[in-house]
Amino acid sequence: MTVQITVEQLAALVGGQFASTADLQLPITGAAAISDALPGDVTFFGNIKYLSGLKKCRATAALVPLDFAEEIGPVAIRVQNPTLAFSLLVEKFVPPPITFAAGTHPSAVVGRGVELGEGVSIQAHVVIEDGVKIGANTVIGAGSYVGHEAKIGADCQIAPRVTVGSRSILGDRVILHSGVVLGGDGFGFEFSNGRHIKIPQVGIVQLDDDVEIGSNSTVDRARFGRTWIGEGTKIDNLVQIAHNVVIGKHCLVAAQSAVAGSSRLGNYVTMAGQTAVVGHVELGDQVIVAARGAVSKNFLAKEVLWGAPAVPIREAKEQMAMVRRLPKMAERLRRLEQLLEAQSAPAARIAESSPER
Amino acid sequence: MTVQITVEQLAALVGGQFASTADLQLPITGAAAISDALPGDVTFFGNIKYLSGLKKCRATAALVPLDFAEEIGPVAIRVQNPTLAFSLLVEKFVPPPITFAAGTHPSAVVGRGVELGEGVSIQAHVVIEDGVKIGANTVIGAGSYVGHEAKIGADCQIAPRVTVGSRSILGDRVILHSGVVLGGDGFGFEFSNGRHIKIPQVGIVQLDDDVEIGSNSTVDRARFGRTWIGEGTKIDNLVQIAHNVVIGKHCLVAAQSAVAGSSRLGNYVTMAGQTAVVGHVELGDQVIVAARGAVSKNFLAKEVLWGAPAVPIREAKEQMAMVRRLPKMAERLRRLEQLLEAQSAPAARIAESSPER
Amino acid sequence: MTVQITVEQLAALVGGQFASTADLQLPITGAAAISDALPGDVTFFGNIKYLSGLKKCRATAALVPLDFAEEIGPVAIRVQNPTLAFSLLVEKFVPPPITFAAGTHPSAVVGRGVELGEGVSIQAHVVIEDGVKIGANTVIGAGSYVGHEAKIGADCQIAPRVTVGSRSILGDRVILHSGVVLGGDGFGFEFSNGRHIKIPQVGIVQLDDDVEIGSNSTVDRARFGRTWIGEGTKIDNLVQIAHNVVIGKHCLVAAQSAVAGSSRLGNYVTMAGQTAVVGHVELGDQVIVAARGAVSKNFLAKEVLWGAPAVPIREAKEQMAMVRRLPKMAERLRRLEQLLEAQSAPAARIAESSPER
Repeated sequence: MTVQITVEQLAALVGGQFASTADLQLPITGAAAISDALPGDVTFFGNIKYLSGLKKCRATAALVPLDFAEEIGPVAIRVQNPTLAFSLLVEKFVPPPITFAAGTHPSAVVGRGVELGEGVSIQAHVVIEDGVKIGANTVIGAGSYVGHEAKIGADCQIAPRVTVGSRSILGDRVILHSGVVLGGDGFGFEFSNGRHIKIPQVGIVQLDDDVEIGSNSTVDRARFGRTWIGEGTKIDNLVQIAHNVVIGKHCLVAAQSAVAGSSRLGNYVTMAGQTAVVGHVELGDQVIVAARGAVSKNFLAKEVLWGAPAVPIREAKEQMAMVRRLPKMAERLRRLEQLLEAQSAPAARIAESSPER
Repeated sequence: MTVQITVEQLAALVGGQFASTADLQLPITGAAAISDALPGDVTFFGNIKYLSGLKKCRATAALVPLDFAEEIGPVAIRVQNPTLAFSLLVEKFVPPPITFAAGTHPSAVVGRGVELGEGVSIQAHVVIEDGVKIGANTVIGAGSYVGHEAKIGADCQIAPRVTVGSRSILGDRVILHSGVVLGGDGFGFEFSNGRHIKIPQVGIVQLDDDVEIGSNSTVDRARFGRTWIGEGTKIDNLVQIAHNVVIGKHCLVAAQSAVAGSSRLGNYVTMAGQTAVVGHVELGDQVIVAARGAVSKNFLAKEVLWGAPAVPIREAKEQMAMVRRLPKMAERLRRLEQLLEAQSAPAARIAESSPER
Repeated sequence: MTVQITVEQLAALVGGQFASTADLQLPITGAAAISDALPGDVTFFGNIKYLSGLKKCRATAALVPLDFAEEIGPVAIRVQNPTLAFSLLVEKFVPPPITFAAGTHPSAVVGRGVELGEGVSIQAHVVIEDGVKIGANTVIGAGSYVGHEAKIGADCQIAPRVTVGSRSILGDRVILHSGVVLGGDGFGFEFSNGRHIKIPQVGIVQLDDDVEIGSNSTVDRARFGRTWIGEGTKIDNLVQIAHNVVIGKHCLVAAQSAVAGSSRLGNYVTMAGQTAVVGHVELGDQVIVAARGAVSKNFLAKEVLWGAPAVPIREAKEQMAMVRRLPKMAERLRRLEQLLEAQSAPAARIAESSPER
């Protein structure tokens, strides 16, 4: 919701009742689940298992059942069906979705031999090069560029100002957000006579069905063959996928992460924010790389990794805990030295010669 | 300045005098403050408190007062008023600013129900969707896209090739650099039957007055409600602001930093380069996150943080210092073991069994 | 190659022979050098010095000489000249390169006083502002923007959807990939009366001959003077180069790296992925910053750096090794404490405290 209302106005919208009349003028500016809600939000309590979460919840208001009698932080608004009321509330505030009519805008430039499926929408200032094929009901957003001989499936949503490089192959229901670049050259050079000579990058980018890629992310074309992102994988903003990378199915790659050249990720891999995988390594299915982790070698399925270079998260946490305890270890070491110094003359000499205390 | 001149030519331009005639042919290629200047730059000495800085300054030349007699590294050029002379010098080299005339370029595509304030400039190949409102004297740069029902205030500078997503709300004097994307979908999925199901992102992006966002940065729209950046906050290039983030007033966020979903920053917060804040945390006013810091929990106002996970900078520095001292600590530990080994038989046995030396 | 064939079909294409007939139906989906190849790839063995590499190589098939008799992992396909056969193979699969005819597309908007060299290609929806000069045979890709008075050399390849900011100066054979932004304002503010006041950024960006910049990377214009990238330097995707940075000749900067304001890199510097250099430092020629390294002070030529803050890589590795050994150090410390505690007690207590391994 994009407007601000009071708790009282919100209660009126959902036909809710108050246990007390305190705080009715508090402002509500958002709506969120119990786990996400912060001051200013309204949330809802639809399942008894979230009761302890609700008690700690920082939302300003919460929709609760009529018989709800617990003490909670948010102002309780009693309604018949909190889940339903919350959905209606959200709908009330959310404006209708924006749709794009089928057809090609007169300002779009469409090349020769282009095949457009039924219901395709080509928006203003789009450029579609020769030999492109686009499946039914796909929308190509304003100002986007689709390179020669690219194939885009059906029901895709290509946002405004996207680049789909030549010969890319996209499945159905692919979503590309604004600023995405598919098919830039891989970063490959050969050093010769004091100069970096460009290695031709003649492969392609392939995105399978239901892939989604966030704003301003980049996927380079392969040296040969393809840079390949598997079905259902979701990639966040400002992510870099290098040439010849293969990412499996149903992976998640959070913002500002990078996978370097030729690395291969299994299925259901999760890379948290600002993570990295160096070139030429393989990660098994369901590997998780925790935030900022930087993976520098192969890991088998289901490993949870952290740190840079990344190690199994138990090890990483143990190392961090040890580092935090270092001042105390240093203190204990000093005590032992003093103790030995007190015991005997030779010990004292050794302690003396110890540097840096 | 974009040309190269000699120290002698530069002195002539400002009517300056030399203490000696050495080095008059050195090239000058830039101008900078004392703290920034490097070889090739001219700087100026306008305030006695910068004298020690000037002595260490690596500039090639410095404009100094007529009575200046200190020994400094740069070639001293004596002028009446160094600050004024420097300003004139810079102006001489700087070409006139580029301005954009009011009006809508014939190649721009403007939807229905669009309201444009007086003096608005819509450049070539811009697309403005239905229901957009743009305040007086705002410039929309070539090739930019403004989505349905977005509101942009007065005196804004939207650079070429920017995306302002549907229903975004921008205050006055907002500056968006080229490649910025406002209003991409937040990265939100629900895992169900082995697939990541997209959670609709129906909120908006709101930028208050005097916000500036650097090239190719991304600000996602909220799940509900708004992703909100407060008045006067300045964001650098390639920064990621996730859905439902709230950033206060007059913050600074340097390049390649990220704030994950639903986190809230106070006013006057500073995030240095390549920093991060994980999701669902809150930072108080005037918190500073030093370069590469990764904040993983709440911190109160004025805390200065460093490290990953970030801790108060004193702790972070102490930990780093301890780690640097580890080789010496290991040495001291070995000495103690040897000492005890020498003292008695039982000690010897224990020392033998000590691993890894 | 973008199709899938079997090992047998591949052998037929190059007229090759098999040592055995096992595994002829294995699928081949890519081609790569010995060091890069992974399962599914075909590689080639053209030089005896790569024999040990070939033995460890994980390629599915390898083109080898007719007299080759070593035991290797990949299926060996014997041919007269493996290097030549590999090249022909790759060519067979690679479609012809895409070229852009000279001339200005009717949808392009070209300002006054623009000078275009022979053979220049201005693609659809390009905007060229007043006073721009473009050298012979340069291609400006669809939807790109070239700001006022910019100069672009000959034989450059500017991809679709690039921003070349006003007054930028580009040498010959410069390659800019899609989404690159040159000439956004440097991130410079002065804090005054509780607000960040913008410092005008009136300098330019200069890229010398043979510079290549990857998708969605950003290079800010200088405060004064120029942000300058030297001849032959190659920059990967999503890299940030701040105002007044000077990068020498023939450097490599890998993805998601950043160089902060006014820093200067020598020639042949290598920055691996996700690295950083803070503002106002200098790196000598041939410095290497290993992955994730964050350089915070000056370093002389040829130094190899790692860590954050970066130190010579030997030190960084030693520190990491020490941290990994911390649990064992803690154990040794505990033993010493127990030993000293037991010294005045019966010998039996020492024996008790020592097992556990």
